[in-house]
Amino acid sequence: MEKLKIAIVGGSGYAGGELLRLLLFHPHAEITQVTSERFAEKLLSRVHPNLRKLTQLKFCIQSELEACDVLFACLPHGSSSRHLDSFKSISKKIIDLSADFRLGNKEGFVYGIPELHREEMKGANFISSAGCNATVTILALYPLYKNDLIEPDRTVVEVKVGSSEAGNKATEGSHHPVRSGTVRSFMPTNHRHIREIVQELSFGKDIQIHFSATAIEMVRGVLATCHVFMKEDYEEKDIWKIYRQEYGQEPFIRIVKEREGVYRFPEPKLVSGTNYCDIGFEKDENSNRLVVISAIDNLMKGAAGQAVQAFNIMHGFDETLGLTFPGLHPI
Amino acid sequence: MEKLKIAIVGGSGYAGGELLRLLLFHPHAEITQVTSERFAEKLLSRVHPNLRKLTQLKFCIQSELEACDVLFACLPHGSSSRHLDSFKSISKKIIDLSADFRLGNKEGFVYGIPELHREEMKGANFISSAGCNATVTILALYPLYKNDLIEPDRTVVEVKVGSSEAGNKATEGSHHPVRSGTVRSFMPTNHRHIREIVQELSFGKDIQIHFSATAIEMVRGVLATCHVFMKEDYEEKDIWKIYRQEYGQEPFIRIVKEREGVYRFPEPKLVSGTNYCDIGFEKDENSNRLVVISAIDNLMKGAAGQAVQAFNIMHGFDETLGLTFPGLHPI
Amino acid sequence: MEKLKIAIVGGSGYAGGELLRLLLFHPHAEITQVTSERFAEKLLSRVHPNLRKLTQLKFCIQSELEACDVLFACLPHGSSSRHLDSFKSISKKIIDLSADFRLGNKEGFVYGIPELHREEMKGANFISSAGCNATVTILALYPLYKNDLIEPDRTVVEVKVGSSEAGNKATEGSHHPVRSGTVRSFMPTNHRHIREIVQELSFGKDIQIHFSATAIEMVRGVLATCHVFMKEDYEEKDIWKIYRQEYGQEPFIRIVKEREGVYRFPEPKLVSGTNYCDIGFEKDENSNRLVVISAIDNLMKGAAGQAVQAFNIMHGFDETLGLTFPGLHPI
Amino acid sequence: MEKLKIAIVGGSGYAGGELLRLLLFHPHAEITQVTSERFAEKLLSRVHPNLRKLTQLKFCIQSELEACDVLFACLPHGSSSRHLDSFKSISKKIIDLSADFRLGNKEGFVYGIPELHREEMKGANFISSAGCNATVTILALYPLYKNDLIEPDRTVVEVKVGSSEAGNKATEGSHHPVRSGTVRSFMPTNHRHIREIVQELSFGKDIQIHFSATAIEMVRGVLATCHVFMKEDYEEKDIWKIYRQEYGQEPFIRIVKEREGVYRFPEPKLVSGTNYCDIGFEKDENSNRLVVISAIDNLMKGAAGQAVQAFNIMHGFDETLGLTFPGLHPI
Repeated sequence: MEKLKIAIVGGSGYAGGELLRLLLFHPHAEITQVTSERFAEKLLSRVHPNLRKLTQLKFCIQSELEACDVLFACLPHGSSSRHLDSFKSISKKIIDLSADFRLGNKEGFVYGIPELHREEMKGANFISSAGCNATVTILALYPLYKNDLIEPDRTVVEVKVGSSEAGNKATEGSHHPVRSGTVRSFMPTNHRHIREIVQELSFGKDIQIHFSATAIEMVRGVLATCHVFMKEDYEEKDIWKIYRQEYGQEPFIRIVKEREGVYRFPEPKLVSGTNYCDIGFEKDENSNRLVVISAIDNLMKGAAGQAVQAFNIMHGFDETLGLTFPGLHPI
Repeated sequence: MEKLKIAIVGGSGYAGGELLRLLLFHPHAEITQVTSERFAEKLLSRVHPNLRKLTQLKFCIQSELEACDVLFACLPHGSSSRHLDSFKSISKKIIDLSADFRLGNKEGFVYGIPELHREEMKGANFISSAGCNATVTILALYPLYKNDLIEPDRTVVEVKVGSSEAGNKATEGSHHPVRSGTVRSFMPTNHRHIREIVQELSFGKDIQIHFSATAIEMVRGVLATCHVFMKEDYEEKDIWKIYRQEYGQEPFIRIVKEREGVYRFPEPKLVSGTNYCDIGFEKDENSNRLVVISAIDNLMKGAAGQAVQAFNIMHGFDETLGLTFPGLHPI
Repeated sequence: MEKLKIAIVGGSGYAGGELLRLLLFHPHAEITQVTSERFAEKLLSRVHPNLRKLTQLKFCIQSELEACDVLFACLPHGSSSRHLDSFKSISKKIIDLSADFRLGNKEGFVYGIPELHREEMKGANFISSAGCNATVTILALYPLYKNDLIEPDRTVVEVKVGSSEAGNKATEGSHHPVRSGTVRSFMPTNHRHIREIVQELSFGKDIQIHFSATAIEMVRGVLATCHVFMKEDYEEKDIWKIYRQEYGQEPFIRIVKEREGVYRFPEPKLVSGTNYCDIGFEKDENSNRLVVISAIDNLMKGAAGQAVQAFNIMHGFDETLGLTFPGLHPI
Repeated sequence: MEKLKIAIVGGSGYAGGELLRLLLFHPHAEITQVTSERFAEKLLSRVHPNLRKLTQLKFCIQSELEACDVLFACLPHGSSSRHLDSFKSISKKIIDLSADFRLGNKEGFVYGIPELHREEMKGANFISSAGCNATVTILALYPLYKNDLIEPDRTVVEVKVGSSEAGNKATEGSHHPVRSGTVRSFMPTNHRHIREIVQELSFGKDIQIHFSATAIEMVRGVLATCHVFMKEDYEEKDIWKIYRQEYGQEPFIRIVKEREGVYRFPEPKLVSGTNYCDIGFEKDENSNRLVVISAIDNLMKGAAGQAVQAFNIMHGFDETLGLTFPGLHPI
């Protein structure tokens, strides 16, 4: 079976670790190099202990990178754009996980949510993976904005996020006695991902997304609760129809809306480790509000998983290759 | 020092346990009887293990209740109204923690948020303690609705709640492997507390509170994130002034809004075990949205603590008696 | 590819759910029936929400079972032995996950730890999967007892366990406000698994395992800390050699002992969802004590994973089929 | 009422924060100065957010210290001994919370566990507060070693500790995604507190404490599980008698051993925020092992609470002054 040579730049972070976990088992991938300036010469499993016994690869430094078929860049925001020329010189195809190329198809990068941009991805060389909070919000709201069903400027979105979203650097705020059990309003307004969301949902109109982010006790996962206001008095079954129309064929989107039991709506822990985005909704019987709820794993559908999905699409592979882990229950 | 005879009806639940914890140390209270049909004849510490070595009292059954000065009722919703006559026959003063008398001053009960109804409480014999989610929301929004600063029908409120809110009965949904780490949209619309909130905030107008509740990994605590839309372009310092005007003298309300550090906004864990309601806010620079954030301990300011505060007011005692625990940090 | 017909009896519990998660993706397995008296006619995903979109199978009742190639029994302790004749009448091969056949090769069942009984398993029709606490302890201590390196009656073992070990029935003790953050000495002495451990480690001698179990904040996972006392003054590198000799070829055992970093020893969360048993050790420089530390996922190597490993061995398949998930990090 | 002038040196850490929480409400204490080099000029509540609205004090630097009645030192290990002369020049009485003076009554410091050294404390000027893991272990085992009931060299002690024990500095190991849900064998052998334990329990004999420490998901709290081997076949009621004899009059020790329910043995969360040490035990029916279980809050009975208890004893105050918080349930 054909194996593509893969380099991962910035492989010691959480997204890099997820890429490794996925690509080590991908039938068309051979990881040839993984860079980390800090951990050069150390085994990957030194920082990604789940990879013990699975690989004997060591980190190298970025200046040692050699030619490859696909380069995944997991550098801090701002770094990828500085290194772009160098990346292009060693790889024809680049998938970037930073925020550097997400807005305005900068440098020819396709915005990396397959459910919205699959066709563009098929021929693309450059893909910019979407932000985690942006992904979970866009996927929740896309059918409604696209079909013009809601008041465009009244949407309120609240995401609840886990601690892995802030990366692997220890800070005062990530110190366990401080972070544990927190319900921290770390970004009530002005979150950086808002611009991505507006870019993908505006469809040429003026829209407003009133966005807030709260950190809660969780390592992986994001839940978005989206309060939208419908232009007409749709029934829940009408909404169902719209979501099924947009997402019925999507391998990684599940509409979750049960009548009974404790799992009536999406939950981040149920998609932990998976590439799923689960979406559910409930209509408010006392107003025109519809509450749309969506859950992803921020490191998967919000980062590495979606990047591998893009990798599959770019190369014409089955879109689910390497992404079939179903998640754990209980967890 | 004068000691009032106190009976607690339904004392085996979580609110009952908190009342015991508070009143056992209250200089004007002598707990004479605590009822539980299920645990009759057992030591209180059998179900409230934090009370070991602090009391040798045992539970009795409700039919054994004798005359007392104040009766606290912590029965399931619906029970208090059935027993009201019997309660009246043994105690002149009743503080009820159920939902039975919260709406419309039913049976002459004063709605039990002191910050809004202190004067009525002073002469009252009957007080109906407010719901926890209602309390945290009302206190966050009261200054804005009272002073008519916001669009009355656009408010979106999202509360994040802990597991103790659902009481002490084990259910499928409270089973640890299921409940642990959850982010469960248990009530996206149609929460019972909405009517209390509207009652207290409407000031004779039509208002709408778009309310959702999400259960998260937490035992005690509620955080309300309230998205309101200002009628005019107020500055944050104008908002400060309004909150200070309404709450500047309140012993249990703190305005929490720091420029730096990890504790810039209210957090439930910091008020755990206390009677505080911490309130903060941030103005959205890109719209007329103001995000107001408030935190309480659902068993304290949301139940037993607020009931003891009412008890103090009713009797002309210092309002903070028995309620001075400052909370723990770290926790 | 040959597909064996698989029935899972008692498939609504946690071990049953894990078997489903594993066998739905196993290249030689076709799940034909899954029983649950309580959830008959409901979709599997009603109780195992991680299986949404992956199977449309519904539960049936036990009396509807038809002939199959392999029957996995996940019934409560005591039930399997009552149903054994009926199981035998529909399937030649039985893998039982209860405690019913673990002691004394009862009814011809092979004790189900492959690392100790691989050869017996190859020809076996009946395998009794080992207890989770027994597995983690036996694997930690087997090289030491087998090679007679330690004082046989001084071993103290303390396991720390998660909440999923107690199954999926909600109880007073599993209620989230009670179970959350607990450090509960639920079985300081007299744990049922001690007899299995002694059976496997005694090698014809009198031995004693002083065993205690403590429930901690965790859903999945067991950590065993084993304090053993060496007969002679072995160095750590001697111990290394012994473990490598016994386990060097084992696909699911990893010796974890790093000089630096935060992952120096095994941790349950790093094996969550996997079939690994990680084992490490440290010699006490001030006595002849050796501390051996081992970690498994109780639902995997401690139940369903080990059962699938046995299934693979029974049929001469690659032992790791269906069991290659590497675990998540961070988690 | 007489108020003693109190200075707290190193007041920005967790133990310092607890001292503040306790002494701000102590009837005989007036906190005059609190030092922190890093946070000088900032409000105490900047780092101890639970103290908001309770004090307007600011941190000063150590060189600004003025004469006081009692000096509490909460500096890192090694610092107090360097500063001792300076401390003596401003305060007659010193209570040190570091490890500097715990062994061998160094510099005339009394070892700070009141249950063992109350008489010496009464006249003392210098008290060295005991280590948290040492305290929980010593209190569990003291009645048994003192009365010579157990084999002196066979005791195995395993403590499970929370994240606050490591202090308030963020490290790789305290980073939330790493620390969360961990069961980390951070000190299987060779823990620094062993020498304190041996000092207090040896009673002139050679004893051995085989000690291991495991970090678990918890912020506050320590549970010690002590496996001891009895010299004779005592019944549990004999053990009861011994513990009651030693501790029956102790205000902060509770013997916890229930026949039923989920709180049969001590649990750290039930003593969170309190100065209690809860102790329970169970006899192994199959050997001469006795398992003794003890729980404390590491920041209270393991640090600041015990220091305040010592302060009370030193001055002839009621020993429980400032220490009556009963703990929360549920938590």
